[in-house]
Order: sequence, then structure tokens, then C-alpha cells
Amino acid sequence: MPERDRFEALLSETLRQAAPVAVMGGPQPEYPFTYGLPDPASFPSRALLRVARTVLLEQGREALQYGNYQGDPALRSLVADRLRWLDGVEVGPEQILITNGSSQAIALVAQALVNRGDTILVEAPTFLGAVRTFELFGPRVVEIPLDDHGMRIDVLERTLTDLRRGGIQPKLLYTLPTFQNPAGVTLTLDRRRALVQLAERFNVPVLEDDPYGELRFEGRALPSLLKLDRSGLVIRCGSFSKILGAGLRLGWLAAPESLLRRLVQLKVDGGTNPFASHFAVAFARRGLLERHVRLLRRVYRARRDAMLESLEAHCSEHATWTRPQGGFFIWVQLKPEIDPARAREEALARGVAYLPGPACYSSGRGANQLRLAFSYLPEDQIRAGIARLGEALAAARRAPVAAGAPR
Amino acid sequence: MPERDRFEALLSETLRQAAPVAVMGGPQPEYPFTYGLPDPASFPSRALLRVARTVLLEQGREALQYGNYQGDPALRSLVADRLRWLDGVEVGPEQILITNGSSQAIALVAQALVNRGDTILVEAPTFLGAVRTFELFGPRVVEIPLDDHGMRIDVLERTLTDLRRGGIQPKLLYTLPTFQNPAGVTLTLDRRRALVQLAERFNVPVLEDDPYGELRFEGRALPSLLKLDRSGLVIRCGSFSKILGAGLRLGWLAAPESLLRRLVQLKVDGGTNPFASHFAVAFARRGLLERHVRLLRRVYRARRDAMLESLEAHCSEHATWTRPQGGFFIWVQLKPEIDPARAREEALARGVAYLPGPACYSSGRGANQLRLAFSYLPEDQIRAGIARLGEALAAARRAPVAAGAPR
Repeated sequence: MPERDRFEALLSETLRQAAPVAVMGGPQPEYPFTYGLPDPASFPSRALLRVARTVLLEQGREALQYGNYQGDPALRSLVADRLRWLDGVEVGPEQILITNGSSQAIALVAQALVNRGDTILVEAPTFLGAVRTFELFGPRVVEIPLDDHGMRIDVLERTLTDLRRGGIQPKLLYTLPTFQNPAGVTLTLDRRRALVQLAERFNVPVLEDDPYGELRFEGRALPSLLKLDRSGLVIRCGSFSKILGAGLRLGWLAAPESLLRRLVQLKVDGGTNPFASHFAVAFARRGLLERHVRLLRRVYRARRDAMLESLEAHCSEHATWTRPQGGFFIWVQLKPEIDPARAREEALARGVAYLPGPACYSSGRGANQLRLAFSYLPEDQIRAGIARLGEALAAARRAPVAAGAPR
Repeated sequence: MPERDRFEALLSETLRQAAPVAVMGGPQPEYPFTYGLPDPASFPSRALLRVARTVLLEQGREALQYGNYQGDPALRSLVADRLRWLDGVEVGPEQILITNGSSQAIALVAQALVNRGDTILVEAPTFLGAVRTFELFGPRVVEIPLDDHGMRIDVLERTLTDLRRGGIQPKLLYTLPTFQNPAGVTLTLDRRRALVQLAERFNVPVLEDDPYGELRFEGRALPSLLKLDRSGLVIRCGSFSKILGAGLRLGWLAAPESLLRRLVQLKVDGGTNPFASHFAVAFARRGLLERHVRLLRRVYRARRDAMLESLEAHCSEHATWTRPQGGFFIWVQLKPEIDPARAREEALARGVAYLPGPACYSSGRGANQLRLAFSYLPEDQIRAGIARLGEALAAARRAPVAAGAPR
């Protein structure tokens, strides 16, 4: 019997029903705007090398040993301290779980709360990586649309009301309220307040995913959902991936202790990396992290500006787009006269790659939308790439409808 | 409503049925023989500091960036190379998954293969950490006893035959064939051959967990189950935790590609630490790992010898024990005249801690057994601790039965 068949028959139910993931690969395009990769030139390699002596020679006995399953205590304290400084939230280290990036935080929350057939709510568009993780647990996914001010709270209320009438208790609302992935939009203060009130009224746990919040280029920071919440239903997760180094795989979540104890039980990987955790703590406790975040704000603001200016110069006939106040992404809406499939071909032929809109909807909508990441390339390459994108979109305009033809 | 109740009602079915884990804590005993912790004095801190320059200054753009979900390609190649050198197994890097310690490898295999109500087979005694992970997926656990030569293959065959008669297809056989945890015993070559033949005949996937195999103090290495297997049903996992540093959280598994693709799909944590992976590769590619393993063999052999000698000197009236050829553990059987509960109290009162036998059986048996780890303490402390253990066991002897009393 061929090996594939042997294991297919033995796989768990969930896995048999899921399609295997496609593996990324192939040649790198000249202008990769597809993924939200941090800028490699900004990685604080030299500063981390300076703290390596402390981590290895002074703390080696802890950094290289088995650690706490809930995460390194010093890193949990650091996360709690930063939540207090940055967000005014009082959360103790006992309410923090250190995870292998926020990816794992999302997975643990899904595993704890979502059973096959349960209903969960997500923004549309959203970070499809999270939705793919949720789907391992077999939920029914309901999409709540966004506009320029974040999630449409009126639609959320209507949806929750309808679900309750149908006897359905949603198990989770997943939201990226700040510099949303992929749309770049930020939920307004009024909507934040309304969202936490709805969560309480309908008893729906909220997972607030905020990997970009500290990368604000302008405007005032808004309180997190965790800060506004009074019900204990908001779980907040964040990450050091965008502010220190994604390769350290350090994320975290803050949750009520009763839930947190359960999440630790599901995190059956021996605990998140003590070695990387000690580097992060040593780096931050010397004041290097806050300095590095200030640098990153300048780096990414310049890139956002370059991309917005280039879009204005080269794409305004063909598309509209969002104007994010921070984060990594701009969301583009193609005008009806642009053929999206043709646009993608023309762009790729010019070395320009982006994330097609349908990759951001659970329902596969969004054919005439796309996501551009401005995080990865320096300004000159952003300008060159967006100029090429403009050419591609021009080449993808549909033939004008002949006069007298039926509209 | 108190916060606990809010979430309890919303938890997934699996989690509602599982008891929350107890958190370790409390004061450290003077002689901690409980856990299999690597020797902190042997951590290669200075050598890792020497490679930090390479990792951060030459490879920082990869070490600090998002990595491959299947694991760093250079680390996968290293694992494949070492499988070839050490075990004569030909496995390509595409058949290797890098995990957050072998804990995560075990969890992924369980998640892929085990559904609620499925039957799995484990050794008795076994590494209960693995069984606790399996239990998240709700299996029926069947225990196969060990003797001094490893798993009782005759009992395994009888059990598989009985299960087949009952129409039951076991989903997994979990085994630690070399320097078993907790028993320290090693499966003989004949039994290894018989085991893989039974696995093929009954179509049962085998998870071969081998974290200690390289720490052999004497005798010749035996071929792994993976090496002997012809059916493609053996999944082998290992770890850098005992040979480099547990804090790096680097484990791996080797599996047929069809299964491996599915396991990658379940590993929803963004991939195992690129930062730690680059350290491990840079360390090993300079020849430092093989040198370090040779050092560790000397360190742990001296500790095993110290513990065996001390047991002989202080405990031979009260107990018998295994004589491992490698690894971290000695398994002790108390004589019938020793009261196990009393022994534990007397030992703790003298600062001596060990793992009680029932912590190593899914069925809770093993009251008059215990595990001693010789890995963590230096020889002089091992000798002092085992002398105290001898006193404790002497104090825990049951009162002699009075002459003429009913037997």
C-alpha cells in the first residue's frame, strides 16, 4: 500500500477534512509587496550581540534550561509593565502567557473555545492566517464588514441579534482593531466602546489581535479593547515580531486567569523559548526596545509615505486605497474598469507581487481588492514598484464599451 | 457572573472534560532527583557566545526574520545528516519537521492521529507528559508492561491480537526504546525487529521517542526503530534539549512526507524559532556539538556511576533498581516491607525528592516504585542524597509481623 494511503486512513477526523496547505516557494519577484515582512535592514543585530554576553555568561543557567510553561517570568513582567505604560491596563504577570508568536496565541484561544459547528465572527477582510487556524476546529465563520473606521458595529449588532434569535451563541469575535490587517484601518473610540458593550451584552469572548499598535506614525493612540472592557471577556494578544525580530518567535496573550490556566494546559510544547525570551528581556531592560520602536516608526512612516505618494502619482485613475496611520498595509480597491485577473498577470509580468483580495475573505470575495505591504522594501524600491503597478493597472483596463451596446 | 463561570461555559468540549494542570512550585528540596533536568554546569554558554557573532552579524537577516513553517532548512539538513551518521538512516530534509522541543512533536502526532475514543498503546511505566498530551484528544490508553529488556513484545502481540478480534484498530504505539523514561531500560535488537514487524502486521503507527539515545555510556548503539522499519509506519522524534540546551526548545521529528505535510498544517505557531535554530546550526557546523556530546557522556556516566554505587551502599536492603547504559534515569522498586507513602514523607523530611511511581502509569499503578534522575546534581550531592534516601527507606520499613499473628 502506498505510504500516503496508510496515513490518510488513520488521520484524525479534523485533518481528513482539511485540505493540505500549499507550500510557498518559487522565484522571488523584484517588487514583493505580498507579505507583511519586517524590514531586515532594521533588525537590531548589533544591540542583540551586545546583550548576548549577559544572556549567555550571566543567565546561561536559566536561558539554556527548561523554563516555565506559562513563559519566562521576567518576560511576562515586561509584557505586563508595557501594557501598563502603553495602554494604562493593569494586568499582572500571572495573566500573561508567552506564546510562539501571536500565531500560537490565536491557535490556543481557538482550541480552547471553538468546537466543530460553533459560530465565530471575523472582520471582512481579515488576516486569513487566523481564519485558517480557526478552521482546524471546524467552526461556521460569519463575516462582519469593515469601512474606513474599522468594523461596522451596526452590522455586528444586527448579526448578534439575529444569531441570538436563532438560538446561536457565538464562541468568539476575532478583531484587529488597530492598523488592521489587511485594510490598514483603525476602529474609532466610539466603536471600540460599542464593541465591548455588545460583547458583554451577548456574552461573546473577543480576541483583540494587535501586532502593529506600537507602530503608529501619526495621531493619538486609542485605548485597547482590553482597556475599555469591564466584562472580562476580552483576550488581547501581541507580539515582538514587528518591534524586535520575528525570528525570536515571541508573542503573548493577556487573559483572565481562569481562562489562562486552561490555555497553558493546551500549550503542550514545553513552554516558549527561554533562550529568545532572555534576549528580549535583556534588550528591553536596557531601554533598547523603546529606542528601537521609535526608530521603526520613522522607518515605516517613510515607507508608507513613499507608497501613498507613488499610488497618488501612478494609480489614482485605476484605484482607491486606505490611508493607514500605522502598521504595515495599504488596502486597494480597483475601479470597475480594471480587470483584476489581468491586473495580477500584468503586475507579475512587471515583477510586482501583491496579496489578492480573496486571500483576505473567508467567503472568497474581494476579487477587485488587493493588499500592499509597505514594510519590506526601502522607499526607492517602493516608488519603482508602484510605478510599475500603475503601468500594470493601465494595461488591465477593460476595453471601453462600444456606444449603443447594452449596459 | 464570576469570570471563571463565564469561560467555563464557553470552553471547548475537550477542555471542559480535562482537569486543569497543577502548577509546579514551592521550595526546592536539597536533593532534587525528581525531574530529568540537564546539568546546568555543562551548558556550552561560552561556545554559544562565540557563534553569536556569526548568527547576528552574518545571518541576522534570516535569524531574526520569519522562517519556514517546517523549520529552518539548514537545521533540517543537520538533523538529516546526523540521522545518517548516527543511525544509518537515509531521510531527506523534506521529511524532517523542526518542533518546539520533542514535546511539540508528540503533541502534533497525537493531534494528527488520535480522535476521541481511539485506542493508543503506551509502555508501562512511561513518560506521563506524553500521555497527558495524548489525553487532550480523548483516547483509550492501553498499557504494555516493560521488563529489563524493554517493552514486553509478547504482551504487545497478544494485546494487538485481542484488539483486532474486538474490531479495534489502535491509532498509535508510543515507545521510548532507548534508556527509557522512567525505567532506564533499552529494548533489545530482537525485540526491536519484532516490534516493527508487529506494527506492520497490525498497521499501527509507531512514535519512537528518543531524547536520550546519544547519551550512551557503554555498550553498542542499537539501530533505531526507524532504521529497522520497512513499512513507513515509524515516526521518530528527538531533541537538542539534552545535548545542547533545553532552553533553545529545538526538537524534531522524521516522518513519511505524506504525514509530514499534515503535521506542518497543524503546527500553527509560525514555525519553530529561527533565532535558536541558527545558533544550533552554527554551533554544530563548527564541530562543537559532537565534541559537546562526548563531554556530556562523561559527565552523565560519572553521575550514573555515583548513583548506582550509592544505591548499592545505602539502599540494597530496601529496594532493587535498573542499571541504565545511558540517559538520565534509574527506576527503583521498593521491597514489600517498605511503606511507599511513609518512604516519601521520610525522604522529603530529609530534603530528598523523587518522582513517585504512579506519576509514570496512566492507570495509577506503581505505588512501590519511583524514578531517580541522576542528570541534575553533581556526584558528591548524588552520594549525599542517596545516603539520606537510604535512611528514609530504613525509617519506612513496616513493623515486623508479630510471631503467631495471622499472615
